[in-house]
Amino acid sequence: MDAAEFRRRGKEMVDHVADYLEKIEERPVYPDVEPGYLRSLIPTEAPVEPDSYEDIMKDVERVIMPGITHWHSPNFFAYFPAASSYPAMLADMLCSAIGCIGFSWGTASEATLVSLLAARCKAIRRVQLLDPKKSEAEILSKLVAYTSEQAHSSVERAALIGAVMMKKVPTDSLYAVRGEMLKKILEEDKAAGLIPFYFCATLGTTPSCAFDHIADLGPLCNQENMWMHIDAAYAGSAFICPEFRPLLNGVEYADSFNFNPHKWMLINFDCSAMWVKKRTDIIGAFKMEPLYLKHENQESGLVTDYRHWQIPLGRRFRSLKMWFVFRMYGLQGLQAHIRKQVGLAKEFESLVRADKRFEICAPVVMGLVCFRLKGTNELNQSLLKKITKSREIHLVPCQLSGSFVLRLAICSRSTEFRHIQQAWQHITQLAFELLQEHHH
Amino acid sequence: MDAAEFRRRGKEMVDHVADYLEKIEERPVYPDVEPGYLRSLIPTEAPVEPDSYEDIMKDVERVIMPGITHWHSPNFFAYFPAASSYPAMLADMLCSAIGCIGFSWGTASEATLVSLLAARCKAIRRVQLLDPKKSEAEILSKLVAYTSEQAHSSVERAALIGAVMMKKVPTDSLYAVRGEMLKKILEEDKAAGLIPFYFCATLGTTPSCAFDHIADLGPLCNQENMWMHIDAAYAGSAFICPEFRPLLNGVEYADSFNFNPHKWMLINFDCSAMWVKKRTDIIGAFKMEPLYLKHENQESGLVTDYRHWQIPLGRRFRSLKMWFVFRMYGLQGLQAHIRKQVGLAKEFESLVRADKRFEICAPVVMGLVCFRLKGTNELNQSLLKKITKSREIHLVPCQLSGSFVLRLAICSRSTEFRHIQQAWQHITQLAFELLQEHHH
Repeated sequence: MDAAEFRRRGKEMVDHVADYLEKIEERPVYPDVEPGYLRSLIPTEAPVEPDSYEDIMKDVERVIMPGITHWHSPNFFAYFPAASSYPAMLADMLCSAIGCIGFSWGTASEATLVSLLAARCKAIRRVQLLDPKKSEAEILSKLVAYTSEQAHSSVERAALIGAVMMKKVPTDSLYAVRGEMLKKILEEDKAAGLIPFYFCATLGTTPSCAFDHIADLGPLCNQENMWMHIDAAYAGSAFICPEFRPLLNGVEYADSFNFNPHKWMLINFDCSAMWVKKRTDIIGAFKMEPLYLKHENQESGLVTDYRHWQIPLGRRFRSLKMWFVFRMYGLQGLQAHIRKQVGLAKEFESLVRADKRFEICAPVVMGLVCFRLKGTNELNQSLLKKITKSREIHLVPCQLSGSFVLRLAICSRSTEFRHIQQAWQHITQLAFELLQEHHH
Repeated sequence: MDAAEFRRRGKEMVDHVADYLEKIEERPVYPDVEPGYLRSLIPTEAPVEPDSYEDIMKDVERVIMPGITHWHSPNFFAYFPAASSYPAMLADMLCSAIGCIGFSWGTASEATLVSLLAARCKAIRRVQLLDPKKSEAEILSKLVAYTSEQAHSSVERAALIGAVMMKKVPTDSLYAVRGEMLKKILEEDKAAGLIPFYFCATLGTTPSCAFDHIADLGPLCNQENMWMHIDAAYAGSAFICPEFRPLLNGVEYADSFNFNPHKWMLINFDCSAMWVKKRTDIIGAFKMEPLYLKHENQESGLVTDYRHWQIPLGRRFRSLKMWFVFRMYGLQGLQAHIRKQVGLAKEFESLVRADKRFEICAPVVMGLVCFRLKGTNELNQSLLKKITKSREIHLVPCQLSGSFVLRLAICSRSTEFRHIQQAWQHITQLAFELLQEHHH
């Protein structure tokens, strides 16, 4: 394919993309295929002679689309949003063309891991300074990291990778960690000879969008020489709205902070932004300088070598799409997007509260509603099974205080009030059928 | 921006991308800006009101392009190639539109880390089975990983992250590790009570594209219960050509293997492929199953949950661009690409060998030529400085047996013989000037 053909095919692809997104609602949001369906539809080997472009594009619809979960369908309410916007897509086109390899952006999981590794390195150095006879292995075996019992699975995984102990801190009735809860565990662990070194706070937990009390937790961590990392993967985007800023009080005590613009800021996956209070802490943890990566400015302080901030060496040119989106939407446009989606969640909350058969299970602060049928976990599992089976909308569950709970997250940029209404009608219809069956 | 505007702007962008790539040779390959140049060209805050698209596109040229290193210029010979092709770009457009979040592909650095963590987990379990009284911390402090002294910096970094010791194995005169070299160190380390558990072999090292002798190393690793990972980040793509397959002999002993199609297989960054002999080894090392990630098929064996294979939870839909490229080029087209680039490297080698002032420093097996002026390291450093300063071509150096060596890698898809000739003329002209200065 030469440049001339790319000009023709590229323009067709632009129309194809616009058609796909304009008509996405007509597609079933969730695929109706069995695992392995793809195997019989594609050859076992790559073609020796080139295929035609027409055949490939036909196969996109025939082979690929049946297996796709349409994350940008207005009927998609699962997990958290995966951002997308036309300007970001334009930027990605340019980004593909430039194709340069940047050498701190990974994902929130990586940000957590990187902060934990930096904290581990700092803690070992601190203890060895006080007691130079202690071996690294001995210190490592005493280090303890902490996080909320509601924190994302990637936090526990970071501790596993870093070969350090991790303890879960219990939460209050709103699923948030408070200072006194962490303090109690710290006292016990220090008395047992352990060395607390890291706390990962969450602003906007995955199950219920709870906010840990960082204004209490921060001073405690600072006093105990513990690194405080804040994982605000989803909720972080909302802090561009002044009305949500109070939830960020205490951020000044944090050593590092991360959020994912690819979740809720209209920038397509992947794009995750990390701040570090003292960048030498991060860089010191795993800096490597082979000759082929040396450059003139590395000791000048003028250049930030993000390769020391992440696990991979290379990174994509993600700032380009962020820049397009900031400029095409403006702060007002981005705020309007956040507020609209929070508003839709509140509308859904009202619909649930008006139905006595249902209950709301956690405060609705942002774009996530946790709800369930009053009754057993089995009943709610059956309801979710019906919802999943019908393929009209897509939801995932969570566990809150032992209860099986349904999570409705406002995800798609194109979700409107009518989609919320339709979703609720659909859920109540299935609930009605389910309760009827139970009566018989 | 609505779908209608996206249709218009998208088509403009397609032309913009084609123009950029057709005229890329006219741009200086390496930027002539000082670090921080961007700061004064952009506002300190995101705009409150949207900017116009026209202004943004003007700024791409005014603000962004002056700072870009043009990785796809035929004058770019640094590092290793960053893949790009028109079909991959088309796929990336569609990929952006679908914007689904896959939950095993990261980069080669990540593949190395993941294999090391899996090996660490396996080794700890194995030792504890034989001696249940040994604590995890005690075992961890005795584990040793090994790699070539020529291996990529990311290998050493993986050991640092995994909190295990790593030792560098010396290489032969061709910069490759041989079985007997590893064997010697293993005997010493075992006698000292250490536990060897992991060896990272390289096929195509970054400095000189050397190939470790995996046919000797593999049986040794298997016999010693050590995990053998193969990092073939660059050279791996060449194994689609039968004439390069003998370099892969011994791969059957490996526990894991990785290469980067985004280096040399025309698939734009990022795209890295990893194979694992026994996938339960990888999955067992850090599997996490929160309720919101559970799905019907997870225990059926029909689905490969790649999220257990990588550090981040999400991954981009990278297989799409691989699929476009395989189909649009066919195996023949991809082989022709590899062979053409190896041929260009051989042409450059001939030019260097014909000039008595220069020497070739390592065998030219693939698309990389290591060469230098006969003389001191200072002389070669001065030559590279002149090359970098002239901005006509872009090279990076490496260190081989204490010598400062220049690396010319065939990178761009559009590099032709005339670019090689021009590059050599340019280098010899600068060398002539340099040697004249030295005489005075």
